[in-house]
Amino acid sequence: MRTVNVELGARSYPIHIGAGLIDHAELITPHLRAKKAAIVTNEVVGPLYLERLCTGLARAGVEIIPIILPDGEAHKEWQTLNTVFDVLLREHCERSTTLIALGGGVVGDMGGFAAACYQRGMPFIQIPTTLLAQVDSSVGGKTAINHPHGKNMIGAFYQPRLVLADTATLKTLPKREFSAGLAEVIKYGLIRDSAFFEWLEQNIDALRALDAASLAWAIEHSCRSKAEVVAADETEQGERALLNLGHTFGHAIETGLGYGEWLHGEAVAAGTMMAAELSRRLGWIESSDVTRIERLFERVGLPTYGPALGLRCYLGLMAHDKKVEAGRLRFVLLRGIGQAVVTGDVDMSDVFAAIDARCR
Amino acid sequence: MRTVNVELGARSYPIHIGAGLIDHAELITPHLRAKKAAIVTNEVVGPLYLERLCTGLARAGVEIIPIILPDGEAHKEWQTLNTVFDVLLREHCERSTTLIALGGGVVGDMGGFAAACYQRGMPFIQIPTTLLAQVDSSVGGKTAINHPHGKNMIGAFYQPRLVLADTATLKTLPKREFSAGLAEVIKYGLIRDSAFFEWLEQNIDALRALDAASLAWAIEHSCRSKAEVVAADETEQGERALLNLGHTFGHAIETGLGYGEWLHGEAVAAGTMMAAELSRRLGWIESSDVTRIERLFERVGLPTYGPALGLRCYLGLMAHDKKVEAGRLRFVLLRGIGQAVVTGDVDMSDVFAAIDARCR
Repeated sequence: MRTVNVELGARSYPIHIGAGLIDHAELITPHLRAKKAAIVTNEVVGPLYLERLCTGLARAGVEIIPIILPDGEAHKEWQTLNTVFDVLLREHCERSTTLIALGGGVVGDMGGFAAACYQRGMPFIQIPTTLLAQVDSSVGGKTAINHPHGKNMIGAFYQPRLVLADTATLKTLPKREFSAGLAEVIKYGLIRDSAFFEWLEQNIDALRALDAASLAWAIEHSCRSKAEVVAADETEQGERALLNLGHTFGHAIETGLGYGEWLHGEAVAAGTMMAAELSRRLGWIESSDVTRIERLFERVGLPTYGPALGLRCYLGLMAHDKKVEAGRLRFVLLRGIGQAVVTGDVDMSDVFAAIDARCR
Repeated sequence: MRTVNVELGARSYPIHIGAGLIDHAELITPHLRAKKAAIVTNEVVGPLYLERLCTGLARAGVEIIPIILPDGEAHKEWQTLNTVFDVLLREHCERSTTLIALGGGVVGDMGGFAAACYQRGMPFIQIPTTLLAQVDSSVGGKTAINHPHGKNMIGAFYQPRLVLADTATLKTLPKREFSAGLAEVIKYGLIRDSAFFEWLEQNIDALRALDAASLAWAIEHSCRSKAEVVAADETEQGERALLNLGHTFGHAIETGLGYGEWLHGEAVAAGTMMAAELSRRLGWIESSDVTRIERLFERVGLPTYGPALGLRCYLGLMAHDKKVEAGRLRFVLLRGIGQAVVTGDVDMSDVFAAIDARCR
């Protein structure tokens, strides 16, 4: 088992990474305030892992309330969240009851937001079962639901007390979702670590084959990367925005197509290509850099072009981005592979051209 | 103008108290991150004060987005909150846009929770226009909406950057609401300040006549009291629970009758009498103390008996209280006037008897 600590003062917490951790209830119980836990999962992950998780916890004397949500980003909205509150109240869950999110990014985002709001905050534990959730969404305390007019628009910064990343759960993950998760792994290389990007170029096939050692290393490295950024800037006043490379364009793709059409990582890959193209047009990176990024995404089976939504649609959707400041779009762009920057100083004609070049 | 500072480290903020402050936009503008503000108010308070507030801010070059909600506790729920998000998104409000809540406790609770959640947090300012909001709900960062099964069940701890308590707005407050606000003022005397309780016994008629000096003193004293408690225990791990004297019973009354039947302060007054009665049964206070408290509530025109909901109904509703720990109800009780304590060590037969004695 590998452990990465997220250093946030009183809100610090460990991320444990390893195969089969879901069976180790003794890793969880020290983090429970009372012997009662609500487990939020969905109808796909639940049948696979809920019983194993419950068995260990029940043996430790923990009362379990399972809450099974419908699957998919389309359900990451208020009505589904409210069903969580309904059960928590019906089952007399208290401020000391822990909410455990067992599943991917959607379950984690909704479970985390429910935990943040229920009685103004209950303890929260993440057990991410997708690559995306293990390397990104379960780390750093961002929780949210979608609004019809924008992704993740309603949410909270709310840190878990523990993240348990069981790498063995990735064996049941559909290939398409695994690839989408790799988009975020590649992102860490692009924004702050060219050596990791090179490592990925060399080991991407091993990762796709679920080679255990490569996987554990990539996940640990990604978590450590994210933990460092989050520790420096918990509520995204500055550096943390770098983690949104490809996300301004990507969220527009997701919202424009309707949640769930493209996976988040797919939209991020195409969005990252737009950001790379824009960086190239500004003379910040070379065409060869763009090609290198494109090549890696292609090897993973990720889209490198966005859908043809039309420029006006892209612009309209991006105007809702959370990084907008004083009406001005801000972009995460590349000064090189391994060196991302946030800038608002971009000519909109270059933005148009970059989107146009990367749509089809 | 009097100022009370709430000391919460990086989240510290001032409460300005005085007559006519609503016209002083220069008190607000230094706290805006960008020159754009959404003002959340309701259909009763809006017509009275919105234009005055907007005039000053517009003169300072601030773009204003007014959001007018329906009036009343019954609307303190998700659907109304969502209309706030709809407008914020439609008007392209950003993370740097400030949300200003202009109104009573309901507007403040909903506006604050909207600010806490919108894009995971936008700056928030409170301009409370009821006595209840000025002395209690606007101070300390508790925000929430109701759930059909419990009051304030869904919410966040989210501190404002400024509270502006314009005491002149109390002139337009219905007498019944003013009296309900006095219940919370009396509460501060009961929980931690017997001298203030005595001062209230001597000055309650002046307060009810809206004597400016008495009013300013009572509001400042109440805010200071609350600020001290909140500074010591922001997220209610301990001492802050004392502020809920009368609220465990009171919330049961409000939920049992349906939100809006009784005003919050009215339910708190009746609930406080139940807590006092329970304290007397435990031998902690004298019958004469109970009578003194009852007498003061009566002079204010507040109910000193709860409605006859039936014991089982009271118990069922109280079981949802946020102070419940390990299935055990915890009560804020009195060891004397000016000395409240939190205890879980109460025989339920005494609780039954206290409720029974204080219902009719």
